Amino acid sequence: MMSATLNGLDLEQLRLIDQTARSNPEAVAALNRWSARVRWQNGFTAQALIRNHTLTLGEPAELAGDDAAPNAVEYVLAALGACLIVGFVFNATRRGIAIKNLELALDGQIDNIGVFLGLGQTGHPGYREVTVKAYVDADADEAVLREVWAETVKTSPVGNTLARQVSLKPELAVVSTP
Amino acid sequence: MMSATLNGLDLEQLRLIDQTARSNPEAVAALNRWSARVRWQNGFTAQALIRNHTLTLGEPAELAGDDAAPNAVEYVLAALGACLIVGFVFNATRRGIAIKNLELALDGQIDNIGVFLGLGQTGHPGYREVTVKAYVDADADEAVLREVWAETVKTSPVGNTLARQVSLKPELAVVSTP
Repeated sequence: MMSATLNGLDLEQLRLIDQTARSNPEAVAALNRWSARVRWQNGFTAQALIRNHTLTLGEPAELAGDDAAPNAVEYVLAALGACLIVGFVFNATRRGIAIKNLELALDGQIDNIGVFLGLGQTGHPGYREVTVKAYVDADADEAVLREVWAETVKTSPVGNTLARQVSLKPELAVVSTP
Repeated sequence: MMSATLNGLDLEQLRLIDQTARSNPEAVAALNRWSARVRWQNGFTAQALIRNHTLTLGEPAELAGDDAAPNAVEYVLAALGACLIVGFVFNATRRGIAIKNLELALDGQIDNIGVFLGLGQTGHPGYREVTVKAYVDADADEAVLREVWAETVKTSPVGNTLARQVSLKPELAVVSTP
């Protein structure tokens, strides 16, 4: 028997994940750890190797790149947007809500990119603010959709990563490659 | 006459960017704003539209995805890695250092993914800590490379975005699409 799907998600699979999460703390803990390798290619282009996937990251011409791909700060916006979409679809599906359309427009404001360019020390070169405008069309009352959205924002992994201070541990090894 | 390149970067173009940055505050301010649109596709798969580029973001099978692409928290690691690579190449090139190899291994530790899965409220589902191990082979003394690395970490746009609190402004519009 084929199991039922909603929003492209297998409901039986969602139920099993929920059951595993509740009964197996080790399975949940395993989902707390994520990894990537990133390799310089040439100029400002790099490749990220993540499990079986390869991503390209670059810079636009204004920043001396060859525009092979979005740059790192654009990737951050894509990550936040996708995280909120996955969260919204997850939370809506668990309530039995069918989604017709869901699209997000994200704008990030960097405090002072000049610090990255080596110009003075006023402010910092990270995002100061990110606005997200979400447009949703779904089979539920507006009040319910607002509840799902609020829950999604509050429990978003990337949203919490950005809104809070992450402890960075950078380390350099100088090596000699053949 | 062709202009000189180092590490795949056009040195004359780098000089012009530096000159523009110093003389034209508006050109610098324009580089403070970045945008993306992210559209839900199906299940946990989304597409990000960034300038002329399209990225796919998904979830692995453990999270009910079809593993079409890395997920949002993996994208964050890729973004941090590429940002540090671009910064290192930029800062090294300005010092005339030729880079042979540069590769980063990133590991992110989420505080408690259970909050995203709807299990309890202990902790938060964002990254608590991210470790970055960089391996570099370049034509310079180790002390100089460590200086370039320290400067790169300090002035990294994504590094500062993660290490500091970003103000998120989420907004939902409920629409009806034809």
